[in-house]
Amino acid sequence: MTSTSDALLIDLYELTMAQAYLSQGMTEEAVFEFFVRKLPPRRNFFMAAGLDQVLSYLEGFHFSDEDIDYLNQAGGFTPAFLTALKTLRFTGDVHAMREGDIFFPHEPILRVTAPLPQAQLVETRVMNLLNFQTMVASKACRSVLAAEGRPLIDFGLRRAQGAEAGLLAARAAYVAGFTGTSNVLAGARFAIPLYGTMAHSFVQAHHDEVQAFTHIATANPHHVVLLIDTYDTEAAAEKVVILAGRLRQQGIIIHGVRLDSGDLADHARKVRKILDRGGLTETRILASGNLDEDRVHALVHGQVPIDSFAVGTAMTTSADAPFLDCAYKLQEYAGRPCRKRSEGKATWPGRKQVYRHVGADRRLIGDVITIEGDHQHGRPLLVHVMETGQRLAPSPSLEELRGRAMASIAELPEPLRQLNLADPYEVRIAPALVELAQKVDRQT
Amino acid sequence: MTSTSDALLIDLYELTMAQAYLSQGMTEEAVFEFFVRKLPPRRNFFMAAGLDQVLSYLEGFHFSDEDIDYLNQAGGFTPAFLTALKTLRFTGDVHAMREGDIFFPHEPILRVTAPLPQAQLVETRVMNLLNFQTMVASKACRSVLAAEGRPLIDFGLRRAQGAEAGLLAARAAYVAGFTGTSNVLAGARFAIPLYGTMAHSFVQAHHDEVQAFTHIATANPHHVVLLIDTYDTEAAAEKVVILAGRLRQQGIIIHGVRLDSGDLADHARKVRKILDRGGLTETRILASGNLDEDRVHALVHGQVPIDSFAVGTAMTTSADAPFLDCAYKLQEYAGRPCRKRSEGKATWPGRKQVYRHVGADRRLIGDVITIEGDHQHGRPLLVHVMETGQRLAPSPSLEELRGRAMASIAELPEPLRQLNLADPYEVRIAPALVELAQKVDRQT
Repeated sequence: MTSTSDALLIDLYELTMAQAYLSQGMTEEAVFEFFVRKLPPRRNFFMAAGLDQVLSYLEGFHFSDEDIDYLNQAGGFTPAFLTALKTLRFTGDVHAMREGDIFFPHEPILRVTAPLPQAQLVETRVMNLLNFQTMVASKACRSVLAAEGRPLIDFGLRRAQGAEAGLLAARAAYVAGFTGTSNVLAGARFAIPLYGTMAHSFVQAHHDEVQAFTHIATANPHHVVLLIDTYDTEAAAEKVVILAGRLRQQGIIIHGVRLDSGDLADHARKVRKILDRGGLTETRILASGNLDEDRVHALVHGQVPIDSFAVGTAMTTSADAPFLDCAYKLQEYAGRPCRKRSEGKATWPGRKQVYRHVGADRRLIGDVITIEGDHQHGRPLLVHVMETGQRLAPSPSLEELRGRAMASIAELPEPLRQLNLADPYEVRIAPALVELAQKVDRQT
Repeated sequence: MTSTSDALLIDLYELTMAQAYLSQGMTEEAVFEFFVRKLPPRRNFFMAAGLDQVLSYLEGFHFSDEDIDYLNQAGGFTPAFLTALKTLRFTGDVHAMREGDIFFPHEPILRVTAPLPQAQLVETRVMNLLNFQTMVASKACRSVLAAEGRPLIDFGLRRAQGAEAGLLAARAAYVAGFTGTSNVLAGARFAIPLYGTMAHSFVQAHHDEVQAFTHIATANPHHVVLLIDTYDTEAAAEKVVILAGRLRQQGIIIHGVRLDSGDLADHARKVRKILDRGGLTETRILASGNLDEDRVHALVHGQVPIDSFAVGTAMTTSADAPFLDCAYKLQEYAGRPCRKRSEGKATWPGRKQVYRHVGADRRLIGDVITIEGDHQHGRPLLVHVMETGQRLAPSPSLEELRGRAMASIAELPEPLRQLNLADPYEVRIAPALVELAQKVDRQT
């Protein structure tokens, strides 16, 4: 999306409320926190992602003249409000968990402290950005755990929910530990390593497979991965063996073959034998085709000779849990802590911090959520990242975030690393926070 | 996304294959078709959407100088190929079902006929665009059917999978029969009617609900919908009754109240009584909060006094089926029909047309898929919409597409209108197509 339109990526009511706040002079400091209410089925943790895009959004937040013209024409907004919007910028503070951090339900991962209208106006897009990348990183981690070190490639763009989803899913998956993506735009924007093979259409456009394989290899000799399941997988593997000798004379190496359909375990075992027998022991097998973490896990644990996996739609759309039950809630206004008490949706009031305990074995033991200033043992997870609308540090590199994610995954205790539901991780509410909630309840 | 980046929204292998095609002079006419392999669980039909965005993409398809620079730097591409990319435009033809048309598995909804490299290069984004809006329109139809005429509003932006998903979901839902959206950008880009209420944070930022209600109503007097579930829903409804009298003296009408949590049926009944008893018989009740078509259906069939529904996340992400099992497959190259025979993924070869039979009761009876030129009784569904890269008609208005969608829904036979799985709709493969497939099989 172009930057001029970003400000209109907003629910109408944010503007309606901002108009009311401004008309009443309600511009004192507000504190909103973003958190997720509960884990999806079969999930044991979340991984935070998307902060960099949130901070860029906040830094660039403004309404263009075109935006104001549209709002004027849409009706319902006063000239005073539209004039105020023209010069409105985000001047608040942000505290947040870092991208790649593991977190659990009800733990705030982002806190916005800003004049009330600003903090309200950024709600929709902040949620939209954090929900999506956090959802994808949390999903992608599971494939990373299941693959046990084997490379994973994102192939999800074609069925991603739109352009930005494809782009940011590639980023979130890379942060979580994927090795690369097929998405060229993600390569261009984020310098994520690009991978690609060939499609069935390429084989079909040729009269036979050997001709197709020869053409793709000679046109792209630097990294040859041949798709061998268009007609008969094992017959194609035999053709690869014969072709490899001919290509070697031209200095071209067949790096790998791709399997995309049928019983992947059975085909991989047969193909591995054919390749090995033909002397192609270095030729790798890449598997794709509706893979998700469960299928990757089954193939890895079945000791199937697959060297790397392309995971697409299931990861990019987080197909088993395509949204997070997330919220961005007002926790304090003008120095007064607030709490939503709607049935089933109650929240903890005030500015909060999360402390994490790690055992002698360097694995997580438990977290404590408390109010800011109530210092606890352990590692505080929310860090001051933006002050008066400016980042306090440059964007970390994706490599740095990958390192953080890898360290976070290494800290997961064994039960949380499983794909199935484990006993819940301990997240305690500190007495200071319980007291604050009771105090707020007595006052409303 | 800016137009300069659209061409890089592509899987790497499209470029790799295009380089091979061009180096071999394989630029003869190719025919690709987009179709969906199967219905998601509990679904009885699809609704086509997204064609307008596909045609705009094809009309504007080009690689910018920046794109070429990136590809050059990424490596693997020859100077000859990069030079060819610079002037490459889409010069092909498109046949497609219209947006708002109902369709079924294996029926092509889009056919691209173009020189092979072009038809290949547009694959990723064409799939990305058609998959998403078709998925959302197909999902949104179900809420339209369940609501039985009550207005539906899209509230999905905050948990949409990225910016474009939020924008295009608003469009697809509007085509399918939603009344409007909260997404301001969708209002600006597509002139979709905007709706909004107020958030819990607005109530919490005030000292009490009456003050909050008064402020929002006086600041935005043209369309007042009050959120009444922040603390005690029925108590808030009583406050609304008292407030309504005061506001009426200022000429302000309370149009509605919104319920967002708890037992919506129970609250709606109690609130309706309170409002009616207070003389607010014209004040409407809007329900929101994790709604989907099943909850809408239950509320409508429970004769719960809810006048309109805001449906968000479940619709925007198509939560029960967050992608379609769609494909874009080569069906013919250089006059030779092709067929993919991969296990479980076989396709029908050749250029196809779909004919639809409608009974005397104006309800669908069955479809026939056949090869182009094999004229059948019934209504042909694929229409020539683009010739040599140019649209054959201007973009239809969204109102026109809504009309088409409404007519399509009206044609659905009763069993297909249910939310649960019906007996499959009859889609026959014509003898001419079966023969062609056999012929292709004999030749490969």
